[in-house]
Amino acid sequence: MNQTKLQNVLSAMEKQGVSQLIVSDPAVIFYLTGARIEPGERMLALLLRTDGAHRFFINDLFHQTRELGAPITYYNDTQDGVAILASCLTAGKTAAIDKNWPARFLLRLQELFDGRCVNSSPIIDGVRAIKTPEEQEKMRVSSRINDGVMERLIACLGENHTEKELGEILLKLYLDAGCTGFSFEPITAFAGNAADPHHVPDNSRGKRGDCVVLDIGGVKDDYCSDMTRTVFLGEASPRAREIYEVVLEANRRGIAAAKPGNRMRDVDDAARNYITEKGFGPYFTHRTGHSIGLEVHEAGDVSAVNEAVIRPGQCFSVEPGIYIPEENIGVRIEDLVLITESGCEVLNHFPKELTVVPFD
Amino acid sequence: MNQTKLQNVLSAMEKQGVSQLIVSDPAVIFYLTGARIEPGERMLALLLRTDGAHRFFINDLFHQTRELGAPITYYNDTQDGVAILASCLTAGKTAAIDKNWPARFLLRLQELFDGRCVNSSPIIDGVRAIKTPEEQEKMRVSSRINDGVMERLIACLGENHTEKELGEILLKLYLDAGCTGFSFEPITAFAGNAADPHHVPDNSRGKRGDCVVLDIGGVKDDYCSDMTRTVFLGEASPRAREIYEVVLEANRRGIAAAKPGNRMRDVDDAARNYITEKGFGPYFTHRTGHSIGLEVHEAGDVSAVNEAVIRPGQCFSVEPGIYIPEENIGVRIEDLVLITESGCEVLNHFPKELTVVPFD
Repeated sequence: MNQTKLQNVLSAMEKQGVSQLIVSDPAVIFYLTGARIEPGERMLALLLRTDGAHRFFINDLFHQTRELGAPITYYNDTQDGVAILASCLTAGKTAAIDKNWPARFLLRLQELFDGRCVNSSPIIDGVRAIKTPEEQEKMRVSSRINDGVMERLIACLGENHTEKELGEILLKLYLDAGCTGFSFEPITAFAGNAADPHHVPDNSRGKRGDCVVLDIGGVKDDYCSDMTRTVFLGEASPRAREIYEVVLEANRRGIAAAKPGNRMRDVDDAARNYITEKGFGPYFTHRTGHSIGLEVHEAGDVSAVNEAVIRPGQCFSVEPGIYIPEENIGVRIEDLVLITESGCEVLNHFPKELTVVPFD
Repeated sequence: MNQTKLQNVLSAMEKQGVSQLIVSDPAVIFYLTGARIEPGERMLALLLRTDGAHRFFINDLFHQTRELGAPITYYNDTQDGVAILASCLTAGKTAAIDKNWPARFLLRLQELFDGRCVNSSPIIDGVRAIKTPEEQEKMRVSSRINDGVMERLIACLGENHTEKELGEILLKLYLDAGCTGFSFEPITAFAGNAADPHHVPDNSRGKRGDCVVLDIGGVKDDYCSDMTRTVFLGEASPRAREIYEVVLEANRRGIAAAKPGNRMRDVDDAARNYITEKGFGPYFTHRTGHSIGLEVHEAGDVSAVNEAVIRPGQCFSVEPGIYIPEENIGVRIEDLVLITESGCEVLNHFPKELTVVPFD
């Protein structure tokens, strides 16, 4: 286990009066150990205890040949893995539970364990939110690749592909660029489809004058990128230009508010207040951003209800948008930022001035 | 909602004395409604009640334009979705909970809901296990494609690719064949790596005499395929041939036991007993198979502890293997079967006789 990360988690446990914590998310186990264990539907758990009696519980199909930093109890498909884990908990003491642990395990644990179960997210996610210098460098590299992929994808727009075809092209671009795949199912959306912030790409094709929302990201060395650009096919109407400029300024204001000492909600406010001021408030229907790292969506929203104070080492997206289905338009502009001691470093360098791509 | 499937679920709820059930798994919601809603980390729930007061709870980012078959309560990112859901539960009555519901939602629900929570899996999974005629046809089509992809993948083995490169070739083969992607992270493993049943492909290359385990599957029209073949590069030693023939006969015996009236464990026994009889028992380290459909691993293992009686319409894998790390060999042969009234239909038609591929 990475001792710095482990100590950070143990300190946070002590601060919150929790002496035993169950980690189960493969992403968190990878974060702590560098080992990728993907147990599918089988139980995987790392019990962390402030008394140091840490222990892994792993199905013996996933036998580990390398040292993980704590003893391993293997169980097999004919055994009750949760019961074996429960026997290592101290009754009467609160157990913090991985926020992603499936109900089938938690409900079974609650039958066996005499103690309170709480969500471990405030402990684990608080530690993960602050990227180490190595993680920061991987985030930079991942976003640099994303800049290049965006350029190549936009170069294909003149070929009149469907949204789904663009998705297939995109996957090949990420693989060619050395990524292992998408960091999330990308959005490639024309016109009215772009007005749905979570549109699933279909067989639509673009036509002259359409906006195109490209919300894309890949995974490089385990770290995720995520960027959105909106471009126009052949021409952009005055109305489209008006909307675009409002979103672009909101993106810039959000980024300017992304600095230590501000709260996460201040970033949301900065972007949202500008859009509201310009009369488009009802058309900005989602939070301004999300934290990102090993996973594309990590805990810590950039939203009106997140009062958490921003700290150096955090990494999150700033992605305001305006979506007007009745006008067949949606515009979103998204960059990732990495919080520094005095402000933030923007990880995306792909241009965001209004762009009209050749289209006949 | 598909009324047949819904009625099957409601009947199962009544049989088990459960009046309210929370579905949250996007795969189950797709199964019931035909709608794909992928809410990421946000809460998605369908409350099913035997009194008919069904209701969806969906983040307003995922606004539905089509009829889902029950009223929808939308909530936004500033609201407590679980509290809204909890207000529609009847206190004092047991609530059955989706087996995959993340702990962050379940722990919050338990703070708010005064009643017992149990795992809904015995209800939902029992219904899903019996494929409808439409689902059966989709399973056939998906496996037919997999047969063709296996043939094309094996044709590349002479080109001396690394395991990872084979994975990249494979993804392109599935996309070209009309699949949306892998149904699981495929295993392409040479020699000693093949002796780990869950090996993660790395930069190893094969050499003459190596076994190659290819455990692959794609998703076509939402339904998963999954097949394993083991072939040999250039030559197969007498020992390799001996092991191969034992696994092949175990695969055939497992398939012969896959019929209504037998228990799931009888399939496991049939394959395992033969391998044990031949002296390789300790080297067959996993269950014989798993159910499959919309998801590659569905509830219902083919294992020594599953006493459930096999019913027509079930679909599962039969995949015995022998893994001997100290001899650098692993052999697994896997087919999918669909249970009929009197026996089973084998969905894979790719040959499984011992194959040596040209390799210099």
